[in-house]
Amino acid sequence: MSDWITGRNPVYEVLRARRRQIEQLWIAQGAKELGRLAEIINMARSFKVPVKFVPRNDLDRIESHHQAVALKTSGYPYTGLESIILTAQSRSEAVFVLLLDQIQDPQNLGTLIRSAEAFGVHGVIIPTARSASITPAVVNASSGATEMLQIAQHNIAQAMDRLKEVGGWMVGLEDSPEAQHPSQINLNGGIGLVVGSEGQGLRRLVREKCDLLMRLPMQGQIDSLNASVAGSIALFLARQARDTGA
Amino acid sequence: MSDWITGRNPVYEVLRARRRQIEQLWIAQGAKELGRLAEIINMARSFKVPVKFVPRNDLDRIESHHQAVALKTSGYPYTGLESIILTAQSRSEAVFVLLLDQIQDPQNLGTLIRSAEAFGVHGVIIPTARSASITPAVVNASSGATEMLQIAQHNIAQAMDRLKEVGGWMVGLEDSPEAQHPSQINLNGGIGLVVGSEGQGLRRLVREKCDLLMRLPMQGQIDSLNASVAGSIALFLARQARDTGA
Repeated sequence: MSDWITGRNPVYEVLRARRRQIEQLWIAQGAKELGRLAEIINMARSFKVPVKFVPRNDLDRIESHHQAVALKTSGYPYTGLESIILTAQSRSEAVFVLLLDQIQDPQNLGTLIRSAEAFGVHGVIIPTARSASITPAVVNASSGATEMLQIAQHNIAQAMDRLKEVGGWMVGLEDSPEAQHPSQINLNGGIGLVVGSEGQGLRRLVREKCDLLMRLPMQGQIDSLNASVAGSIALFLARQARDTGA
Repeated sequence: MSDWITGRNPVYEVLRARRRQIEQLWIAQGAKELGRLAEIINMARSFKVPVKFVPRNDLDRIESHHQAVALKTSGYPYTGLESIILTAQSRSEAVFVLLLDQIQDPQNLGTLIRSAEAFGVHGVIIPTARSASITPAVVNASSGATEMLQIAQHNIAQAMDRLKEVGGWMVGLEDSPEAQHPSQINLNGGIGLVVGSEGQGLRRLVREKCDLLMRLPMQGQIDSLNASVAGSIALFLARQARDTGA
């Protein structure tokens, strides 16, 4: 199965990462070959990727926000859970993994993956079913971070068991009275941060497997954050704890 | 000018806030009058708002993600900068304001407003031009937080000058080497947090008016966060500083 990746940042990152097979690069006729677009064309040529200049309409038919560029590639190169664990071990670091249970919205999934990459997780786990998968829309929403990060499709509850075996504490993000304030939680160590779906939150089995539940302090009248924002703040806190050792 | 607000949370919050004139409520014929939808219908009736049961197609023509409900209201009730300052003063609190300079994407604008509400700002300032304004799409993306929050349209640079007069420090969010790590910045006090546009960041004049620049520590290869995530993390840090006095 092949993907059409569009947008300048995503196409640039897919080419730079060299993790996918690249079939061809399409550029809109008349687009100015400057900046990032020039870098894309040069990189494609140096990798012997066929570059085709096509009418803008042909790109419009792939996706509306194409920014004059589209890249035909093999599908997303998923990794495995063990590969993520090995990455942590090879760096002699405690595991730092984001587990996304049934995130439905590609924009939220992409945003969470972008934050996970920025805050240096070893990998991201998404379920094998009932979740958005790594489609070109997700690659786009992640600004290409998907290509720099190890992402595995795996049963979430089983992945939690395995991560516990290698010293990970499973921290579920939940806005409930039972959940603890971040200041009460030691996030410096092996961590599996678990984020539930936008509407339903954590499923029962996944919630039961959490060692701790964490809630972010809020004080508005709506009292809820976008799922990708809440997950990103939790990732930031874990990164901060790892950096300062506190 | 009137707005059509759709979606169960946004419609509920617009009704509950009672800040807009309400013309009528449309409900999809055959929708189950349970939970939030029942609350909406009861609230509308208690406010003497005409409730009309219409074919689902009529709602589809307004917006695709309507969740069987649409509310016709007056346009967004903007407030003024002075009203935001008075709110802080009436609570004997140092000002806590989010200034959004030229955010283009309604989803990002809505997400930032939702986070601002959750973390208890006194108000949000958006520019009078070259920015997304508070459209129904933004109300939706904010999950209705727009209706619980004071939002003013104002020249950003002038608003910064005025907020400085009442003791606010202007903190610009920027991912640059000159910007300081959050741990180096005292966020407990009067704060105007300034977030620039998704692509260009802070404009020159706005940047020059900042007392401090703050960057979030990152360590990925992409090294950037979604604008709404970065702004939300900064709001979280300011809230945390205010709550702990540190």
